[in-house]
Amino acid sequence: MTAKTAKTALTPSTHTTPPAKFSHGVRKGNILQVAGQVGFLPAVAGQAPTPAGPTLREQTLQTFANVKAILEEGGASWDDVMMMRVYLTDVDHFAEMNEIYNTYFAEQDLKQAPAARTTVYVGLPKGLLIEIDALAVLG
Amino acid sequence: MTAKTAKTALTPSTHTTPPAKFSHGVRKGNILQVAGQVGFLPAVAGQAPTPAGPTLREQTLQTFANVKAILEEGGASWDDVMMMRVYLTDVDHFAEMNEIYNTYFAEQDLKQAPAARTTVYVGLPKGLLIEIDALAVLG
Amino acid sequence: MTAKTAKTALTPSTHTTPPAKFSHGVRKGNILQVAGQVGFLPAVAGQAPTPAGPTLREQTLQTFANVKAILEEGGASWDDVMMMRVYLTDVDHFAEMNEIYNTYFAEQDLKQAPAARTTVYVGLPKGLLIEIDALAVLG
Repeated sequence: MTAKTAKTALTPSTHTTPPAKFSHGVRKGNILQVAGQVGFLPAVAGQAPTPAGPTLREQTLQTFANVKAILEEGGASWDDVMMMRVYLTDVDHFAEMNEIYNTYFAEQDLKQAPAARTTVYVGLPKGLLIEIDALAVLG
Repeated sequence: MTAKTAKTALTPSTHTTPPAKFSHGVRKGNILQVAGQVGFLPAVAGQAPTPAGPTLREQTLQTFANVKAILEEGGASWDDVMMMRVYLTDVDHFAEMNEIYNTYFAEQDLKQAPAARTTVYVGLPKGLLIEIDALAVLG
Repeated sequence: MTAKTAKTALTPSTHTTPPAKFSHGVRKGNILQVAGQVGFLPAVAGQAPTPAGPTLREQTLQTFANVKAILEEGGASWDDVMMMRVYLTDVDHFAEMNEIYNTYFAEQDLKQAPAARTTVYVGLPKGLLIEIDALAVLG
């Protein structure tokens, strides 16, 4: 290519300014990376981020919505996602998360193959049950 | 590019249907992503997935075989792998895993540089000692 | 493309030989992957790797330096980084790490959008407080 491809920060209107010098998502050329999203409700000016909840279902659906908002901000959709990493805090949440996940993606009416996925159990800040990041390739 | 590049699910014959709407691996253009693989033995119709084992060695070698099957299903090999993430459940497994890993990759006779790697200790479902995912770039 | 693109191992002079068959970083075409870096001081021949420290600040700044050395070895810079994964061992380190991170990146004078980021709490080998890996796209 002749011109340097710029990296663009993706900041949906639903998202607060990140608490550190990172982006909620970035796109450069046909690669789009979504940063780790948690189940924060849409940002309200002057208020600290508040997670949906308290159930796993509410946090998970809000997390999906947050990932999707960043994909769309970058011109992508779930169809373009190659990899999703799901971080849970409790091994007992796995079956329920899978059920929520399956129902959600059945409703998304994917036209391409579903993404690859890794799910592991890690620690997250207090009150957060799930975190998801995603790598998408547009084209 | 003029035509949209399709994302293809990679499902080796050794693998069961994923328990949720994700793929064991996907390829789109020259990017191939392998989902988190564990040490499940080749699928037997009508039976739940069973891990190799019970030793770390058996699970690790089976996990490598499962990653490799997906790479090959997508027309790639270990030579194309850019990044591997190794998830262990026990810090005391690190040295043994590295030894198994070194022996395995010595036998793979890599023609290109070995992949980058991150190894961390997380929680996995009961009975699983190791999980590995991989990002490959073909070309 | 007409010729196969080679994957190149990135081994800055500051880094020891990896303890297993993996690379500190690899580049293939315009994709550069940095393996999980920890806060090891520059390598000294004949000595085992020693982490900077003992504070989180010292380890974090050394880890940034180690990631940067690999980026530069591959012809990239922080501006090209799409995604960083930060692994902490202690949830109580989050706020301090963010402060160190913000100060560091303010000094880097980024010309493009900051990278996306995922931060989770995992286990690391004894004595290590932080690990970071990174995916960069050049262009």
